[in-house]
Amino acid sequence: MPRAGLRCRRPGAEMVELPFLPFCALLGALGVVCVAFVSAWCQQWRGGFAWDGSAQMFNWHPVLMVTGMVVLYGAVALVYRLPLSWSGPKLPWKVLHSALALVAFGLTVLGLVAVFNFHNARGTPNMYSLHSWLGLATVLLFSCQWLAGFTSFLLPWAPAWLRALYKPVHVFFGSTILMLAMASCVSGINEKLFFSLKNGTTAYAYLPPEAVFANTLGLLILLFGVLVLWALARPGWKRPEPDSVDTRQPLLSAER
Amino acid sequence: MPRAGLRCRRPGAEMVELPFLPFCALLGALGVVCVAFVSAWCQQWRGGFAWDGSAQMFNWHPVLMVTGMVVLYGAVALVYRLPLSWSGPKLPWKVLHSALALVAFGLTVLGLVAVFNFHNARGTPNMYSLHSWLGLATVLLFSCQWLAGFTSFLLPWAPAWLRALYKPVHVFFGSTILMLAMASCVSGINEKLFFSLKNGTTAYAYLPPEAVFANTLGLLILLFGVLVLWALARPGWKRPEPDSVDTRQPLLSAER
Repeated sequence: MPRAGLRCRRPGAEMVELPFLPFCALLGALGVVCVAFVSAWCQQWRGGFAWDGSAQMFNWHPVLMVTGMVVLYGAVALVYRLPLSWSGPKLPWKVLHSALALVAFGLTVLGLVAVFNFHNARGTPNMYSLHSWLGLATVLLFSCQWLAGFTSFLLPWAPAWLRALYKPVHVFFGSTILMLAMASCVSGINEKLFFSLKNGTTAYAYLPPEAVFANTLGLLILLFGVLVLWALARPGWKRPEPDSVDTRQPLLSAER
Repeated sequence: MPRAGLRCRRPGAEMVELPFLPFCALLGALGVVCVAFVSAWCQQWRGGFAWDGSAQMFNWHPVLMVTGMVVLYGAVALVYRLPLSWSGPKLPWKVLHSALALVAFGLTVLGLVAVFNFHNARGTPNMYSLHSWLGLATVLLFSCQWLAGFTSFLLPWAPAWLRALYKPVHVFFGSTILMLAMASCVSGINEKLFFSLKNGTTAYAYLPPEAVFANTLGLLILLFGVLVLWALARPGWKRPEPDSVDTRQPLLSAER
């Protein structure tokens, strides 16, 4: 393995060397499966999609949240784990990380618009369930994370000591926000199934095919998220950058 | 600070030194608040406690799960972060870690008995919701974690290389199980509120005092869990033990 020398090793912590790229391909496939599952659930059992305040508009909510806050967010978090990003300037990877995060955030906001419009069209109150409190808190944290990351690591005004101080906070909240998004998804799927599956043999308690399918979706989302958190925590997959100049180089710095 | 020399530092990662013990006291207080909140919810709004298959028996389920799988589990996970555990033999701390985990697991099993007995007494099916699937998966993972930890780190037969290989897995699953427990709690509280708050002005959608109180409980559980995960991830609070003899010393080894 030509890049083995770049990896930062710790004794005892990494006795089995696992290649990142095949793992990444498997993780990507799992992410696609999650998006396919949530889309198939809404298409097959919940009446498909529309953007008109109806129940079909609500269906965009789970699809956009799983796609933006979990799958794409997971990809964003793993950008610096690509061995390709370890050589050459870090700036293009910072821009990619930031831009992908902005796309994920955009999908998330659309997902919120879908559920708020659906509620408002039916006169249903907003923001009462624990799922909604947690979900909104997660999205707000994500917006703070993006803004703080952009201003600290890409704009030129943050001094090096502030960036060094903030970086572990950014890294920790990167994992925390994903974890909160996973909890939001699980509580949301659970809640939706109790709402939708009420009658006779299709009641949730009798585990009709839709319930098995959507419960499986919940577990797949958790599996995807846990694998992302595992990849992030793995010391051997971290970008070896104890104190490179590039780490301290903002986007619009005059020295660039 | 007399123990500062013991801490393993990494450049840039720990620019603000935070003392562990005051943080730990605050975290303990937050854990007590979580247990007090879940008990008060069940006592004040859900009819109190009994062990007779009634709704009062169900009430033990949230109390025991929050106490065992979140608060006590969090304390178990942080045992090796106590500076007191850094000097002298590691074995007593291993025994404490293992024994506290067993108590947490016992409370969790009682919490499962409470909900299964409640369902069986009413003829309600078991294990259909995503909350129940996730919750049971979490408890099963916890049982595997305890068994694997006990046999690897306390019994004498595991060779040093196996223990070194398993340790990062045990550490990772320690955090993962707590995270899954947090997601289980949130989905369970959300589900219970939809079940219980249905009528007129007390409907969940109108956010009666019970809903605000239990939603707040959900957020407090998440805050507690995130703070535990943060304390676990903080490099400066990890036990400095690159390769001590004690790490490799099992409970029943002849050499001891």
